[in-house]
Amino acid sequence: MSGNVIVGQSGGPTAVINSSLAGVYKTAMDRGANKVYGMQHGIQGFLNGQIVDLSDHIKSNLDLELLKRTPSSYLGSCRYKLPEVSVNKEVYETIFQKLHELNIEYFFYIGGNDSMDTIKKLSEYAEMTGSHIRFMGVPKTIDNDLAATDHTPGFGSAAKYIASITKEVIRDGLVYDIKSVTILEIMGRNAGWLTGAAALAKSEDCEGPDMILLPEVPFDTKDFIQKVDEIQKRKKSVVIAVSEGVRLADGRYVCEVGDANGSVDAFGHKQLSGTGRVLANLVAGELGCKARAIEFSTLQRCASHIVSRTDISEAFQVGGAAVKAAYEGETGKMITLKRVSDEPYQCTTDIYDIKAIANVEKRVPMEWIDVPNYYVTQDFINYARPLIQAELTPIMVEGLPRHLYCEE
Amino acid sequence: MSGNVIVGQSGGPTAVINSSLAGVYKTAMDRGANKVYGMQHGIQGFLNGQIVDLSDHIKSNLDLELLKRTPSSYLGSCRYKLPEVSVNKEVYETIFQKLHELNIEYFFYIGGNDSMDTIKKLSEYAEMTGSHIRFMGVPKTIDNDLAATDHTPGFGSAAKYIASITKEVIRDGLVYDIKSVTILEIMGRNAGWLTGAAALAKSEDCEGPDMILLPEVPFDTKDFIQKVDEIQKRKKSVVIAVSEGVRLADGRYVCEVGDANGSVDAFGHKQLSGTGRVLANLVAGELGCKARAIEFSTLQRCASHIVSRTDISEAFQVGGAAVKAAYEGETGKMITLKRVSDEPYQCTTDIYDIKAIANVEKRVPMEWIDVPNYYVTQDFINYARPLIQAELTPIMVEGLPRHLYCEE
Repeated sequence: MSGNVIVGQSGGPTAVINSSLAGVYKTAMDRGANKVYGMQHGIQGFLNGQIVDLSDHIKSNLDLELLKRTPSSYLGSCRYKLPEVSVNKEVYETIFQKLHELNIEYFFYIGGNDSMDTIKKLSEYAEMTGSHIRFMGVPKTIDNDLAATDHTPGFGSAAKYIASITKEVIRDGLVYDIKSVTILEIMGRNAGWLTGAAALAKSEDCEGPDMILLPEVPFDTKDFIQKVDEIQKRKKSVVIAVSEGVRLADGRYVCEVGDANGSVDAFGHKQLSGTGRVLANLVAGELGCKARAIEFSTLQRCASHIVSRTDISEAFQVGGAAVKAAYEGETGKMITLKRVSDEPYQCTTDIYDIKAIANVEKRVPMEWIDVPNYYVTQDFINYARPLIQAELTPIMVEGLPRHLYCEE
Repeated sequence: MSGNVIVGQSGGPTAVINSSLAGVYKTAMDRGANKVYGMQHGIQGFLNGQIVDLSDHIKSNLDLELLKRTPSSYLGSCRYKLPEVSVNKEVYETIFQKLHELNIEYFFYIGGNDSMDTIKKLSEYAEMTGSHIRFMGVPKTIDNDLAATDHTPGFGSAAKYIASITKEVIRDGLVYDIKSVTILEIMGRNAGWLTGAAALAKSEDCEGPDMILLPEVPFDTKDFIQKVDEIQKRKKSVVIAVSEGVRLADGRYVCEVGDANGSVDAFGHKQLSGTGRVLANLVAGELGCKARAIEFSTLQRCASHIVSRTDISEAFQVGGAAVKAAYEGETGKMITLKRVSDEPYQCTTDIYDIKAIANVEKRVPMEWIDVPNYYVTQDFINYARPLIQAELTPIMVEGLPRHLYCEE
């Protein structure tokens, strides 16, 4: 093959997004690619000429293993959305000119639904202009909100991290012999997949969280407080998993409500409260018990020290499958994961038209939510449990997980 | 031996405090203890009659291994401080009466400097009244602020967790091609051991945090902002590790500046939270760049999924050493860790008079702090690095770390 390959990462990172990068790189090299370029900071960096030759970075099979285990987007990322061709044709002309200069034949973009919009637009422009360059999407997002695919690489590891630390925090809540409420704030602005994953903590050796608040269900203050009060009559330590994106029936985010009074600190800057903190204050005020909020924070997307082996393997597979499909002539498509069975868990890859995926958000189906009990159903758990199975041990050096590193 | 043993846990938990419990239990059983009782929620629970027979909980060697790997205080904890004998003699009489009823000969208390006050007072009362019961302290605290011991069990695992996730978060900060400041808020009210441990992230594959703010050094707003600005001229993503307990020169906590109504815990300590957020607001306001705060939170004391093997082994050893010493006639003492050498790291146990330890706080020595550069020195790193070495793999069941669990 004489054509070259380019690959980029876009949108928020995951703990396994670099495993997909490794899958693209290795499969392209195995198929005889001349050069595999990486665009730094996605299509935006590409436009600024930020391009690297990946073989300068991945020099051995050990490097490839380290790359898989390296959190965050190795190539950097962007949140740049391409304008419509009708609005700005020049940017497309620039991109394609640069691609031709690099003799690119295959273009891979690892990202979520916003990023798939880039693949959609570039492949449509290629079709319109008769370009032979093939554009393929590689799915990635901890949010699990991509259409057409059973689940997204990145979700399983975030879910495993969330369930593991939820178990640990539930234990921590039992330490003192006092009434307390712990609010776990979990990522997911519009889709409750990650927050629902806290239910996986429920197991032979753990009661699991007591309540789960998803953004798919409008938040009712009175009902919420009543439920917490009811649970606290039975047990002292109450643990509640809440999505950062829960909203009132009128559409306002719960965290917006808490900011209404617009508190300002002594330095004169506005204090922003998270959803967890707002709910902890609410509980403390209404029920008069100790309440604390724990934000699971950025670690949800970069805790590579406890990834799911199922997830990291599938992340690698979708990267490889995208290369295979492109080499076989596909373009304007995304690789999907297709579940064959829950138990034993079996999953293969498939391909799907990018137009049906770009900009579409998949939320938790209402039939998987037990609304009155603030929980997810057994169907949700059966769906999610296989995705957190098994581990890929970090390569530990001097007591810490080793990452692939390249000095700038 | 006809005498029985009782053991309790007190103060904040650590990821390895149950390994000390396992060490006490196993060594006592090996030495022929008739019964090993556990007091639930420390001396406070003991006064309320909350006592369990540990052999009902630890039924096999597998249970013992699970107990070591179980985060949080298995027996629960308290923050109860015994009154002086002169103030309330009755409480001592009650305790000793209950101890005699249970035929207790050996009393072990796993805790920090506040908890060692309990051992001190009980052993003094025993001496005063001619009681034969022996009281021994087993050191524990993530804060590493106990006197007389080279370091405390619990610190190494918290340091390993902090260094590991600092590496991951530093990676995460590099994702977008924009100026940003990330503030990592780390536990430690008066001593900067844990915050200093963030420096361990600096390694062949990681630049480490750019600044480290310890509570031992007064916070100077102007100098701080100037330093951040200076660093940001060289690199876009600036990562700063800050202790929750940093203070202004006038003694006020930085977080108090942002939070007027400071609450107080049972020991009269101020409840701290929000230092990271206050500093992120400050940076965003003064330098106009994106700034975020990440609170490492409770996970610092309960992330048993990534413990240090050195730490968990030493936690077990100090438990065992306390039993050995008590059986050999010691009382009113705490087990200490005595470092023999840094490289290769070697450490043994010793015993020390409890009076020199109770209520004393060991802070980071000023000669280990590089004040103008907001960092710790190589001596600090040489001290801390051995303590995070090696791993004790969690026992994974259905994709999650397994804990020892006993239904109430």
